[in-house]
Amino acid sequence: MNSSGAEYQGGARSGRRPGQSGTREAILDAASHQFAARGYTRASLRAIAREAGVDQKLIAHYYGSKQRLFVAAIGLPLNPAEVLPALLEGPRETLVDRLRELLVFVLGTAEVHRRLTGVVRAAAGEPEVARMMREFMAREVFGPAAKALGGDDATFRLNLVGSQIVGLVMARFVVAIEPLASAAPEVVADTIAPTLARYLVGPL
Amino acid sequence: MNSSGAEYQGGARSGRRPGQSGTREAILDAASHQFAARGYTRASLRAIAREAGVDQKLIAHYYGSKQRLFVAAIGLPLNPAEVLPALLEGPRETLVDRLRELLVFVLGTAEVHRRLTGVVRAAAGEPEVARMMREFMAREVFGPAAKALGGDDATFRLNLVGSQIVGLVMARFVVAIEPLASAAPEVVADTIAPTLARYLVGPL
Repeated sequence: MNSSGAEYQGGARSGRRPGQSGTREAILDAASHQFAARGYTRASLRAIAREAGVDQKLIAHYYGSKQRLFVAAIGLPLNPAEVLPALLEGPRETLVDRLRELLVFVLGTAEVHRRLTGVVRAAAGEPEVARMMREFMAREVFGPAAKALGGDDATFRLNLVGSQIVGLVMARFVVAIEPLASAAPEVVADTIAPTLARYLVGPL
Repeated sequence: MNSSGAEYQGGARSGRRPGQSGTREAILDAASHQFAARGYTRASLRAIAREAGVDQKLIAHYYGSKQRLFVAAIGLPLNPAEVLPALLEGPRETLVDRLRELLVFVLGTAEVHRRLTGVVRAAAGEPEVARMMREFMAREVFGPAAKALGGDDATFRLNLVGSQIVGLVMARFVVAIEPLASAAPEVVADTIAPTLARYLVGPL
């Protein structure tokens, strides 16, 4: 894992950006609508394709999977279904270093934390966003990552990690309490990474 | 500190409840409006009294202080300006037990976490609520509690505590990820209290 954060950019690359084709916009709009109306689990690529007026194969071509389409449609700056397993794959004794590096990247990259803040705000304010996030996290993130983590309480541990990350976004970017809001990403990462490491692999 | 949570009920008692007089309602409505329009710092009891059409002394009689009026108006179930110093007053070696007890009370008392969730949602969704919370926390909570805690990084430490508590509310009650959302208050408190204790007095 290098410190440029390039390996986290999958979600951001497939998100909405100026210059993107109208077809992609139509797919993302239809996906946002279908995920909000039906939740993550029940929304289907077929219905999204129909609403966007495109062939379902085109969605697969652009986004690869329902999971990645969701990440792009909701505007997540990184795909937790890809980031978490990568974090957990390495040696446990350096997990805290990988967590620290990820936090520095997220906190230090404006486009990333701006989009993350948008998703947190939307989940707090709109029940249908909370629902689709809940279903997405359960199915695509917590489930697979719990297998990688192992142990009876793995999903609970991953929930705790989610709680601290969402709370950090709320405190630093939404309510913007000081000095946390202005602290250097490295300083914040130094204090939060051990919490996340304990939640994942430490004694609870 | 007993486990009934009676000592935390100050905020809840002074909140809006059925049977409350029209005068109190008028004061709380005027306070909500003035705090939202001017922020916590610039809102004045004089302007709130004028808008409510009551004598300023009546506000002092009902709510005691601007701080307590704010807690009641925004619907906070407990007053962090009173809870935090009480937590910090006792011996440091039992701080984690007091944190655990407070978490069990908050998570296990429907009216308390329901109102806390309402405030977190409002802060996430409405910039003027985020602003008044930020000013209230800085002036009435973090400032005095940092003195009680001591050390150069006391306010930063209190910010970290706030981040984990808000994140816990988001994860358990707003997005409601499982199994965290359904876990017993005692189980959640056991895992979160050591994090809060480390943020307050442990090595960062």
